[in-house]
Amino acid sequence: MSSPSPSSAPAALSWQLIEDARERIAGKVNLTPVLTSSTLDGLTGARLSFKCENFQKGGAFKARGATNAVFTLSETAARRGVATHSSGNHAAALARAAALRGIRAYVVMPDNTAQAKRAAVNRYGAEITWCAPTMAARENAVQQVLAATGATLIHPYNDLLVMAGQATVAVEFLEAVPVLDVLLCPVGGGGLISGCAVAAKSIKRDIRVIGVEPKGADDAARSLRAGRIVPVERPDTIADGLRATLGELPFAEIRRLVDDIITVSDEDIVRAMRQMWEVLKIVVEPSAAVAYAALLNPPSALRSRRIGIIVSGGNLDLDQLPWRVAPNN
Amino acid sequence: MSSPSPSSAPAALSWQLIEDARERIAGKVNLTPVLTSSTLDGLTGARLSFKCENFQKGGAFKARGATNAVFTLSETAARRGVATHSSGNHAAALARAAALRGIRAYVVMPDNTAQAKRAAVNRYGAEITWCAPTMAARENAVQQVLAATGATLIHPYNDLLVMAGQATVAVEFLEAVPVLDVLLCPVGGGGLISGCAVAAKSIKRDIRVIGVEPKGADDAARSLRAGRIVPVERPDTIADGLRATLGELPFAEIRRLVDDIITVSDEDIVRAMRQMWEVLKIVVEPSAAVAYAALLNPPSALRSRRIGIIVSGGNLDLDQLPWRVAPNN
Repeated sequence: MSSPSPSSAPAALSWQLIEDARERIAGKVNLTPVLTSSTLDGLTGARLSFKCENFQKGGAFKARGATNAVFTLSETAARRGVATHSSGNHAAALARAAALRGIRAYVVMPDNTAQAKRAAVNRYGAEITWCAPTMAARENAVQQVLAATGATLIHPYNDLLVMAGQATVAVEFLEAVPVLDVLLCPVGGGGLISGCAVAAKSIKRDIRVIGVEPKGADDAARSLRAGRIVPVERPDTIADGLRATLGELPFAEIRRLVDDIITVSDEDIVRAMRQMWEVLKIVVEPSAAVAYAALLNPPSALRSRRIGIIVSGGNLDLDQLPWRVAPNN
Repeated sequence: MSSPSPSSAPAALSWQLIEDARERIAGKVNLTPVLTSSTLDGLTGARLSFKCENFQKGGAFKARGATNAVFTLSETAARRGVATHSSGNHAAALARAAALRGIRAYVVMPDNTAQAKRAAVNRYGAEITWCAPTMAARENAVQQVLAATGATLIHPYNDLLVMAGQATVAVEFLEAVPVLDVLLCPVGGGGLISGCAVAAKSIKRDIRVIGVEPKGADDAARSLRAGRIVPVERPDTIADGLRATLGELPFAEIRRLVDDIITVSDEDIVRAMRQMWEVLKIVVEPSAAVAYAALLNPPSALRSRRIGIIVSGGNLDLDQLPWRVAPNN
């Protein structure tokens, strides 16, 4: 295992940070299983391995980064608690990590947050501040919380410790399946793919790392072409976990290490999600199906390759599915 | 690991048959993962491990028994093929095992068989004979097939080699989690629980083995009380895999080794199935949720125990679910 050459850029994600993260979160998060399927290999003409972060604590990879960030805090900082604004999996992951360390978590959530996600954050005993469902209101509210409490902000992705935690997905994946030629990874704010790109290329220099994102939230593809972050004004996709705009820290690693970004339609995301439920027998959320969706019409470069697919999470409302369902009793 | 004391009864399932089965099917079926969940431990007040046969080849434990039976055949017998009547997971498992060995499979199916199950049997290249959807028509049709082809009948559960194959579920389970106090197992025709009871008690003499079945198909509970097989005239349950009547060979082992049979309502089966989807993030069919359903109102003897739950399969129609689902796009 070779380390990446030291970068002169400030605040780059190093292999050392990832190794530290791995040791720090061991026993506090799950080592998730890798699944294979000869049926899906046959359908796609490739050899697929699925790293199942839907089986992670809290149902998503977010547990890794949040746990790493929370357990890195000094005693003094920890005593003042941690804070974030998020309506999704990061909020629950941070609440859980804080509970594990026995410190307070302050979560700012938009008042239109789904019931299931409120419940997850509540379960871990976080203190919730409600705000209007706009980014300005969220940021304003979290600044007030930070000022009032002295808590440390743990950003969902624009944070090296969070990125280092998410990177452990790729470390475990390559330990389980060292022969991978390609790693396919969903892209939202970029925390997962940036961490996994640094980890994967540190372990295996010639592996290709490819991001996949919804056509309706294709800021990573646009940004990589433009050489600077190009936000999508109004993201429009069923993959609710991938609507965030890339962070600066993840983008730096993506520019440096990610080989390509593929975009997929919502129609293909739903078809992929359903195939994964039906054949792999796993419950995955739409955001977690985008990497496999790229293989429904596989680019020729992916044919016959050994492909690692990161399945990011499995949190969704079972009363609301993106296909027609008739009651059977 | 101690062997069970040799039984004087003819045609009993021995530990040797199970060891042979394990060796014979190694590499031809999956070693399935075991999942745990602190959320479900909290809900039930016990320490649960789930052995996930929904991740087995063909999506159900049936691959084990069928593969063992097919690969035990002599060359001469194998050349004439294998036959069964089944509309469910055993038919597909037998078709797959026959395809692996390169021999013919003849499957008699009722003409009202669901499309998904026809497709699975077809995919493995089995020869299908259609018949009316009655047990008499099925048995008559399979007799004609046997007479015409000289194929060997592989019964879905009333067969020692099939039982020995299914027993490998418990062998793997206790290797992965040696501390189990109790094994909870669904009961249909009895192939799975009889094999698992012999295996589990051979490995760990004091483990309790408890069968779980739907109230609307409670022939195992009735039969255990009566000391003889008491069929349920018209089984009525959502757990379509558990409507079969106990076989003679499995029943002999159940009487000898199974400590108790618990019955569960269809309402609890659906609630358990949904909790498993939601929390464990796995797709399981109703029949595979009955063992966990027994823990929704856990008998006091199961509180705080280390309980192994066998999840038998994950084949069901995703367009038809036993709860209300609204489309979300």
